[in-house]
Amino acid sequence: MDQAIFDILERGVVDIHVKEELKKRLEAGEKLRIKLGIDPTGSDIHLGHTVPLTKLKHFQNAGHHILLLFGTFTGKIGDPTGKDKLRKPLTDEDIAKNMVTYLEQAGKIIDISRVEIVKNADWLAPMNFSGLLELAGTFSVSQMLQRDMFQKRIEENKEINLVEFMYPLMQGYDSVAIKADVEIGGTDQLFNMMAGRKIQERFGQKPQAVITVPILEGLDGHEKMSKSLNNYVGVMEEPRNIFGKIMSIPDTLTQKYFDLITPLSQQEITEIMQMHPKESKMRLAFEITKLLSTEEQAKETQNEFIRIFSSDDLCAIPDSIPEISIEKGEYSVLEIAMSSGFFTSKQEAKRKIAEGAFRINSQKTTNEKDIIFIEQETIVQMGKKLFCRIIVL
Amino acid sequence: MDQAIFDILERGVVDIHVKEELKKRLEAGEKLRIKLGIDPTGSDIHLGHTVPLTKLKHFQNAGHHILLLFGTFTGKIGDPTGKDKLRKPLTDEDIAKNMVTYLEQAGKIIDISRVEIVKNADWLAPMNFSGLLELAGTFSVSQMLQRDMFQKRIEENKEINLVEFMYPLMQGYDSVAIKADVEIGGTDQLFNMMAGRKIQERFGQKPQAVITVPILEGLDGHEKMSKSLNNYVGVMEEPRNIFGKIMSIPDTLTQKYFDLITPLSQQEITEIMQMHPKESKMRLAFEITKLLSTEEQAKETQNEFIRIFSSDDLCAIPDSIPEISIEKGEYSVLEIAMSSGFFTSKQEAKRKIAEGAFRINSQKTTNEKDIIFIEQETIVQMGKKLFCRIIVL
Repeated sequence: MDQAIFDILERGVVDIHVKEELKKRLEAGEKLRIKLGIDPTGSDIHLGHTVPLTKLKHFQNAGHHILLLFGTFTGKIGDPTGKDKLRKPLTDEDIAKNMVTYLEQAGKIIDISRVEIVKNADWLAPMNFSGLLELAGTFSVSQMLQRDMFQKRIEENKEINLVEFMYPLMQGYDSVAIKADVEIGGTDQLFNMMAGRKIQERFGQKPQAVITVPILEGLDGHEKMSKSLNNYVGVMEEPRNIFGKIMSIPDTLTQKYFDLITPLSQQEITEIMQMHPKESKMRLAFEITKLLSTEEQAKETQNEFIRIFSSDDLCAIPDSIPEISIEKGEYSVLEIAMSSGFFTSKQEAKRKIAEGAFRINSQKTTNEKDIIFIEQETIVQMGKKLFCRIIVL
Repeated sequence: MDQAIFDILERGVVDIHVKEELKKRLEAGEKLRIKLGIDPTGSDIHLGHTVPLTKLKHFQNAGHHILLLFGTFTGKIGDPTGKDKLRKPLTDEDIAKNMVTYLEQAGKIIDISRVEIVKNADWLAPMNFSGLLELAGTFSVSQMLQRDMFQKRIEENKEINLVEFMYPLMQGYDSVAIKADVEIGGTDQLFNMMAGRKIQERFGQKPQAVITVPILEGLDGHEKMSKSLNNYVGVMEEPRNIFGKIMSIPDTLTQKYFDLITPLSQQEITEIMQMHPKESKMRLAFEITKLLSTEEQAKETQNEFIRIFSSDDLCAIPDSIPEISIEKGEYSVLEIAMSSGFFTSKQEAKRKIAEGAFRINSQKTTNEKDIIFIEQETIVQMGKKLFCRIIVL
């Protein structure tokens, strides 16, 4: 198989609906229209958001036509449940600002100059009641309720607002409006993307192929990367933050981050993964820092990182170290030292801290009364041998 | 209580939502806006359709403002289930024609010259997607599913098309558009009318009172009056048909027909119902014939009826006579005679028929080979004493 086609069909993909048909069209050299829908209600994006962009990149590399579709119509709908009274519909200015911010950030992954930018308010805002009824007629209520998000809500006895039934119709009609051949989205978008196939068929179009990409776990290695869980790497963060955060992920995530975020070839990744886990991870941190800033900055950051964590120290961190859990919050250095389990008395802890033998994230902390805000995974260290991982609850 | 207010609140009503409030407004002399929605997909109306019109008449008598609301928008929607491929959306010409026919017929019950005629396409057709979403946001999916029609469908494992969820929104918004104070409809319309209250509230209007009127049983005394069951009296039928059909209803229906269809006062009805059941029913036949034609025609028809069924004969029909059931279809006079159970042999039947002793719906039938199309309840008679009611399956 052609490398570009292999990348499209096999890399960072959970599932493809009508994969064989898509493969044939790709092999026949058809130039396809690739849709990615973007919610313009937020602005800053993190690595989790770059996963589908990386998939778009594979298509862009192979010469296909990329459409970034901003849900500008959706963004102007208030909270249908009425629960969140503070959530005001966005103004046109908000949306325009968010779009610019998004494009600036997405530009770190794909070539924005070769992307078509479309907004669904252009066709949804003028749609009248008859048009909407034609869309609604495509579905039965039970088909809608099959959506797993709704199933879950029913099991939990939570309300589903009728407006939520309209979203798959809107997202589906978007595919008609832009004549999408392929839509890309997270696995949580599967239902809406499949709705697009049905609606395209209703409007006499060839139904789009649907590619689901994985949900990216955050730095903790368990939960979906998200801002609210504070386990994310923002695309616009400082290189040293990006590098440090990536170095903090569990080794088990290294391969997945390589596959889903970096532009490296399959072969390069395989080679890197054969190195020592710490080295593979440092290479990952380098590649991601480079992707989000520049090669030069990535090199500088890496050198700085090595300077602080001397490579000896680094390799001395055992693969498996004890873990303790504490709640997010402010703690004194002494409190942190005592919870680490390294010391049998406060006297001993105070002494060792004063001696400079106690480190938090490899920084010496000689004042026992300093207050540290613990908000994410933190490594504490006593001398060269004792390590402890603090997990934030 | 004032007679007009009594008629409004008590006659031919199943239930009134916020009855006390409505009573107060009526007693305060408020001039209210009364809505009746009409589906313009059909044209001919029967007595079942006149029940809500009679209720409108009570309001009209009391000087309120009557609005006949034609669902012209709804009429142009095709079959959402796609099952009935032959059911084409109506054209504007069809709808205009049906409206004229309806008004002509409704004019037999209410004074059309004092009625405001409105069409919901005027406000629904131009409504855009945002407007629709605002409506949809008023409801949760589970609230929609509470509608008994949907509950039944779910129990029977039948599909509900998403378009069907839109109907309560449309009918509800109609009440906003015309600022209805009261909506009248059959019990099967309760959900949609209550939806109107919710939507009016959402749009800052005082929610309408909702009056449900009973479903009228057809001539058979069991099933809802409907064209498809052929148990109806059409408003445009010939006086003699109307009169004859009313005379064929079970005595148990007489009071209900008086209450729901005739303009007679409660006192008059009470007096009439104290007469012999056959006489009360004949008075009912007279009143309904008069309502749908003229007093003169009603008198003529009644006289003719009495001529055919000599009053002796008439009173000779026992209250309870044997019944047999056959399938709708064509039968020879001999076949009908044999199924009546009057005769022990075909020889005897043939002889009696030739003698003129056998009657079908009180008409002598002397030719055993005549073919009769039996499509509704029919009385057969042998001499002056033997009767049998043929029920059509």
